[in-house]
Amino acid sequence: MRNVFMTVSYDGTNYYGFQTQPGGNTIQDHLEAAIVHLTGEVVKIHGSGRTDAGVHAREQPFHFSTSSLIPLERWRLALNGRLPSDIRVTEVREVPMDFHSRRSAKRKTYRYSINGNRVPDVFQRNLQYHHPGKLDLSAMREGLKYIVGTHDYTSFASRRSTKTSHVRTIYEAQMVVDTSSDYPGTHEQGIIHFYITGNGFLQHMVRIIMGTLLEIGEGKRRPEDMGNILEKKNRMAAGPTAESKGLMLWKVEFNEEVLLLNSEIADE
Amino acid sequence: MRNVFMTVSYDGTNYYGFQTQPGGNTIQDHLEAAIVHLTGEVVKIHGSGRTDAGVHAREQPFHFSTSSLIPLERWRLALNGRLPSDIRVTEVREVPMDFHSRRSAKRKTYRYSINGNRVPDVFQRNLQYHHPGKLDLSAMREGLKYIVGTHDYTSFASRRSTKTSHVRTIYEAQMVVDTSSDYPGTHEQGIIHFYITGNGFLQHMVRIIMGTLLEIGEGKRRPEDMGNILEKKNRMAAGPTAESKGLMLWKVEFNEEVLLLNSEIADE
Repeated sequence: MRNVFMTVSYDGTNYYGFQTQPGGNTIQDHLEAAIVHLTGEVVKIHGSGRTDAGVHAREQPFHFSTSSLIPLERWRLALNGRLPSDIRVTEVREVPMDFHSRRSAKRKTYRYSINGNRVPDVFQRNLQYHHPGKLDLSAMREGLKYIVGTHDYTSFASRRSTKTSHVRTIYEAQMVVDTSSDYPGTHEQGIIHFYITGNGFLQHMVRIIMGTLLEIGEGKRRPEDMGNILEKKNRMAAGPTAESKGLMLWKVEFNEEVLLLNSEIADE
Repeated sequence: MRNVFMTVSYDGTNYYGFQTQPGGNTIQDHLEAAIVHLTGEVVKIHGSGRTDAGVHAREQPFHFSTSSLIPLERWRLALNGRLPSDIRVTEVREVPMDFHSRRSAKRKTYRYSINGNRVPDVFQRNLQYHHPGKLDLSAMREGLKYIVGTHDYTSFASRRSTKTSHVRTIYEAQMVVDTSSDYPGTHEQGIIHFYITGNGFLQHMVRIIMGTLLEIGEGKRRPEDMGNILEKKNRMAAGPTAESKGLMLWKVEFNEEVLLLNSEIADE
């Protein structure tokens, strides 16, 4: 048996999230079907975490055990040939048997993207939340600071969360304004990207943080309200859950050593 | 009556090109339907030119006459609310009655984009032709130079072209290699954009130029063959027609004065 690690990139617009659902049509379902088709072996893959319906991933790790003898350098093209064009395996390697995509993960980064220009970009329409109204970006940047640190994030978690602890650590939270787009129309506000890195995230956490920050940007709340909301540990205290399409799992980081297999990396 | 000028941006993946076809589902059909829905007035719009099925436009101008009294500043949002999300009106203004989107156009620029990286970018999958194999980029850059100037482009035109003259002028042709993408995977070749500006283009012209340049990049032809192909004035001499999805109408330029209405511009 081998423990195979892969990363997958997907446009989540047409899927019900990463993890298998009774109704099917998830990223996991498509990956497992492609693996069965390639190897004849039924496998269960383990992702670094879930993503909601409509959420994208630039780079999501998963792993699975296989007895297939197909050389690793053939897997990427072989699987991509069997996957829909909006799901692509980007990397394949063998890892130690005790590696686990979720438990071995050290840092996860999500990106949320807001298009603040007047005209939505048709080419990015599924990847950006369009907010042409004026946003107070410096207030949003100020509010964002409050979520960094180790906190109980109950106020920013779905009420359906089943986790016993809502304590997580956010290591970094950055707002980057990109006005370099060559898309036509006015560019007063540009594209506003939020990068949030933590040791883990609760259900809807980034989207509720973003929904609350948008209310700060619209002047409905003040930046310091973010701190008060955290303290209340009550979902009712925060703003709405922002649209899923602006959210992308950006990257998942591991300690290098957990990925190393006898210092031999089977990359492509 | 007013002569209304608009620019439209579209992801052409799901459409049969700009111009009305018997089967419907063209950009023109959707625009005209949205205008009828808004004004109750049946209009015929005139584009700056045709685009093939699957070809995109960043900025395509069109115009039409209307007796509607709806203020121009309301048109963009009102039409966009009635259009599919992959078609967006980006600009609206009134122009002199003798302005014509095609006849008044001075320069048109097309962009063709090749993804030369090993892994296709799922987020750009409909906008890039994926060519992971090694390309000789300096040979392609060299071959591109031959198409600049005033020539009979019969070799680079569809045999179905019904134009009486195949003489056109290409003012500029540039190759720009972008290796700045943050998409995962290796980036040996990057994204290769070709910008071609001329006074007009024959059917399939940019795509046949690109199909031929790709053969030069693959070492199947030499750069100087581009000149020989032009001289032959025979479609058989050139390479295949490159895939439509990499092509985008980038911009159409006019002399400023033809757009001016009593020095009063009704922009939004």
